[in-house]
Formats: sequence, C-alpha cells, structure tokens
Amino acid sequence: MKTAIGIDIGGTNTKIALVDAKGNILARKQLTTASSNNVDEYFQAIFSKIAQLRREEGDPAISGLGIGAPGCNEQDGTIERTANLIIKEQVPIRTIFSEYYQRPAYLIKDSNAAALGEKLFGGARRMDNFVLFTLGTGLGCGIFLNGQLVRGNSGLASEMGHITISGNDRICGCGRKGCLETYISATGLRRTVFQLMAERNLDSPLRRYSYSSMTAKIIADAAAAGDALALAAFDCTAKVLARTIADLSACFEPEAVFLSGGLALSGDLLLQPTRKYLEEQVLYLVKGKTRIFPSSLGANDAALLGAASLALFNQKEKIL
Amino acid sequence: MKTAIGIDIGGTNTKIALVDAKGNILARKQLTTASSNNVDEYFQAIFSKIAQLRREEGDPAISGLGIGAPGCNEQDGTIERTANLIIKEQVPIRTIFSEYYQRPAYLIKDSNAAALGEKLFGGARRMDNFVLFTLGTGLGCGIFLNGQLVRGNSGLASEMGHITISGNDRICGCGRKGCLETYISATGLRRTVFQLMAERNLDSPLRRYSYSSMTAKIIADAAAAGDALALAAFDCTAKVLARTIADLSACFEPEAVFLSGGLALSGDLLLQPTRKYLEEQVLYLVKGKTRIFPSSLGANDAALLGAASLALFNQKEKIL
Repeated sequence: MKTAIGIDIGGTNTKIALVDAKGNILARKQLTTASSNNVDEYFQAIFSKIAQLRREEGDPAISGLGIGAPGCNEQDGTIERTANLIIKEQVPIRTIFSEYYQRPAYLIKDSNAAALGEKLFGGARRMDNFVLFTLGTGLGCGIFLNGQLVRGNSGLASEMGHITISGNDRICGCGRKGCLETYISATGLRRTVFQLMAERNLDSPLRRYSYSSMTAKIIADAAAAGDALALAAFDCTAKVLARTIADLSACFEPEAVFLSGGLALSGDLLLQPTRKYLEEQVLYLVKGKTRIFPSSLGANDAALLGAASLALFNQKEKIL
Repeated sequence: MKTAIGIDIGGTNTKIALVDAKGNILARKQLTTASSNNVDEYFQAIFSKIAQLRREEGDPAISGLGIGAPGCNEQDGTIERTANLIIKEQVPIRTIFSEYYQRPAYLIKDSNAAALGEKLFGGARRMDNFVLFTLGTGLGCGIFLNGQLVRGNSGLASEMGHITISGNDRICGCGRKGCLETYISATGLRRTVFQLMAERNLDSPLRRYSYSSMTAKIIADAAAAGDALALAAFDCTAKVLARTIADLSACFEPEAVFLSGGLALSGDLLLQPTRKYLEEQVLYLVKGKTRIFPSSLGANDAALLGAASLALFNQKEKIL
C-alpha cells in the first residue's frame, strides 16, 4: 500500500509519521520544534529523524510529504513566524522538502490538516459540513462546508481563534484585545484560573502554582478531583465555547463540531458543560442540529494524518 | 430569451418581477404582504398580480417561478411564520405554485436569493468567496465559499443576524438576548438612536419622533443634514458591523462583503465609518483582504433576481 510522510509542526514538538492510505500510522518520531532562528538546523534535524524512521521501517518508498504548520501560507508554500520558529523572512518550506526528497511536498495549515484528517479517517467521514477546533497553546480551526475545506480567497481563512468577544479585555498575542483564543485554549484556561483566583475566595490547590508552572493538565486533574475553582474555570471556558458553537450553528448549521488538541484530552470536563450551554444558548431554528464530539483520532493525530493524506490522495484532496 | 417570474416575500411588501436570463427586470408588480393568517387570500393576490403583469407584457412564456422568503425551509419547500404571515402550520408554497402554474417552482431564503443574484448578475460575478448582508427590518445573510452557496447540513445556515454580541442586552425577536440584528438592521439603528437619546444630551430633531414613527430613512436624512445624534447612531452601527466583518474576514477571508436592503440606501453614511473601523479592527494577517461594497443591484433587486434565476438556470444553480 502507498505510504507517505506526515509532519506536524507544533508549538513545542514536531511530530513525524509514516502513514498508509488507510490512515494507519506505521511508525512515528518526534523532535523539539526549534526556538532559535536557525531554521536550517531545524530542517536538518527533521531530515535526520525521517532517515532514521525509514531505515527502521526497511526503507519504504514514499509517495511524498505533507507538512502541517500553524499560520503558514498554503498558496505560496512558505512559513514565517510559525510556531516557535523565529524566522526573519519567508522560508519556502515546500520547495526545500520537495527538492531534498525529489518527491511532491505539500504545505497546509495545521488546523486545516486536522479537519482533513477527521474527514478522511475520523468521525467526519460521512459529513459534508463540520468544524474542527484544535485546542492547544492557541485555538485553531478547520471548516468543511459543502464537502470542501474552506480556505478563503487567498488561503488565509480559519483564524477563528481571532474572532473577538466584546466585554473581554484580555490582550491577545496578535496585538488586539478580546480574541476567542484568550479563553478557548490551554493558555486561555490558565488565564481563566488566574482571573478566578483574583475574583473569588474559593480555596484551591491551584493557588500553590505560579503562572509559569500552571498547565491545562494540572487544572484538568484538579477538576477531575472535584476542585471547585478548577471546575469553575472549565465552566467559564465551556460557556464561551458553547456561545461560539451556537454562533457557528446559526451561520453554517454544521452537523458537528470536533474538539482536538491537548485541551480536548480533558474530555467530559469540557464536553458536558459545553453541550449543556449550547442547548441553552442556540437559536431555536437550529436547536439540536450541531453536535459536539471529541476528535476520533485522539487528541493530536488528526493533523499528522491530514498532512500525510495530501501526499497519499493528491487528486482526492483537490476534490475536497 | 428565456424568462421567469421572481417573487420576493418581504416583511412589508411582496415584489414580483418578470426577469430574463441576462438579469434584466422586464416588468414588476408589488403588493402588501398579508399580516393575517389568511394565506390563501394572499396567494390569490399574488396569482392575480402575476396574471396582470403577464397580460401587460403580451403573455410571455415563463420557464418557472422562484420564490425568496425569509426563514423558509428550502429543502421541504415550505414556509411557516414567514415575514408578517402568521401561519399556524407549514405551508407547502413550492408545491402550491408549481401546481397552479404547471411549471417548476423553487423556494430559497431571501438572503440566499440576494447572494445568488449578486453572484450571477451583480458585483460578485467574478468572486468565489463573498458574503452579502440584507439590512432590512432584520439582518439577513448569504454566504458563498469555494464558489458555492453555504446552506448548512439541512438548509438552515446563514442566520448571521442571530450570532450574539456579549455585553449587549437588547432582547431579540428570537427570544434570546444580544443578537447581532438588534444592532445591524433598520430596527437596530432605531434602537441605537433611542439608546443614545437616553444616554446623551445632544439636541436633535430626532427627539421629536415617537419610537413608532421613527424610520431608518428619517435617521439617515438627519445624519446627511449633519445631525450629531444621527451620525453617532451610524457610527455605533458601523462599529458593530465592522467587528462582524473583521470576524468574517478571520474565519473565511471572503473577497468582499456586500450590503443590500433598505438600510444600505444610507450609502456612505454607513459604508465610510464601517471601512474605517474594519481597517482598525481586522486581524493583521487578513488586513485589506475583505472589501465592503454596496450591492450593485440596488438596495432590493438582488433577491428578486436571485429567486428568478433558479427558474432560469436550474442546472447552473445546482453547480453553485
């Protein structure tokens, strides 16, 4: 069976996998995403991991490579200020990889890759209208409507993390105020916990952590153990997420919204209150039309599979 | 040339036109949209106007009829609680018209019809990604992405008038609080004027009008004459509209947003401040990507043309 390499450039780690046309991950590697401006070293480290992976798998032929990266330019095939890579100019990553391997290489936004993975191999296989959120350091989003990925007029669509919530004064990394991802993301959950510690008098083990040492995992563990402050933070996050999904439901009437990424690992802690608030907040016309699911590809494999699929089903991707 | 009948069921008036395949309106009629529950009388009045129109035009052959109506069910071909028609059950309007005329009849949401009209005959002819707002009694919306109309999973999409703005306590006709159309519509503009009269001490000729007698036209005329209160109301409306367009731009990166409907007749009074605030508020990634235009089909003909087009280009509409 045809195989290809999928690469998912994340904020912290870069994941690499050998994927077959049924969406099986045959082998995987991981490395730290460079936080320096030495992009050549970072690429060499990726090449070396791929060489190691292929050697270990008996040097399989690959049909090509698909790369998912946040904030990339899909049309030009370039990255700039992507994840933690501090790059001063646009880097033609697609050309660099296709020339190195003498195989077709593809570049896609990580959140679009995740939506494509969910469509081809996951819970959205029979859906033409759905939205996938990646809840990580930031909030990413991939939108399928009429069976097609929504890319925008020049490939810049799907920045739903940057729709604005008025009455929200949190400063966003984009330089504006009130962006959705300042609430709906692992970082947003942490901000909410610190706001709640300032506003309420609830005792909580979370008060023993510094802002720098606090993670979504620590908050989820506290909530799972019944900590009221942690539960309140999930409740607040769910309320904002439900309102966003209610808005999406009114605009597009998607069949489902999928949650993936690290924060989605919190499972029912986030899903249950989000479903409850959606039911309360949604426009009567579309009540019950949009359901909320966790990604069926685990928290983090959707993007890897979606990226690889570009090199596995090039023609099909064009149809999508 | 092929001709068809377009019907646009509005809150106040129902418009009827004989349209050719180039988008020319060859003749038109108008009647009051019934505000009773006697839907049969209303339909008879439409039939009679169409008969009169055809007689006056030398009884042209028609290929069919396209009906645009707010809040209709496109898939079932039914209306219920549409515009001012107070109907207790679902009325199969598509079947009623196709049986009466023995010709194909089509039903489409008025705002989708307007977007389709703009795409086929108006300013969006060469665009694959755009949004059209109808600014009337309420706020309607039609969305084209990847060259296709976004209809949602069961034809209920495009209710963008009911996305919610938090920090806004205005009660909406849908029973919820804070819907966008409580600001962005002719009714919303009037609400804003009354809020500003309560909040500010600006003298204004608008203070001589009752709520019931106030119209968007009166407010636009006052603003055009330099009245500070009326200008402040347009400024407030523009700020909310610009934020909505900034959000749309981040989500879909449409090439353009078109404004149609009665409030769009206010022209630069709304357009200029909206463009200014969009420039200030939009995410840097999509800066300058989405432009704002008035509908090129006048304030109110886009829906009529789009509805008629369904009976003129049936195959083509399926492609769209």
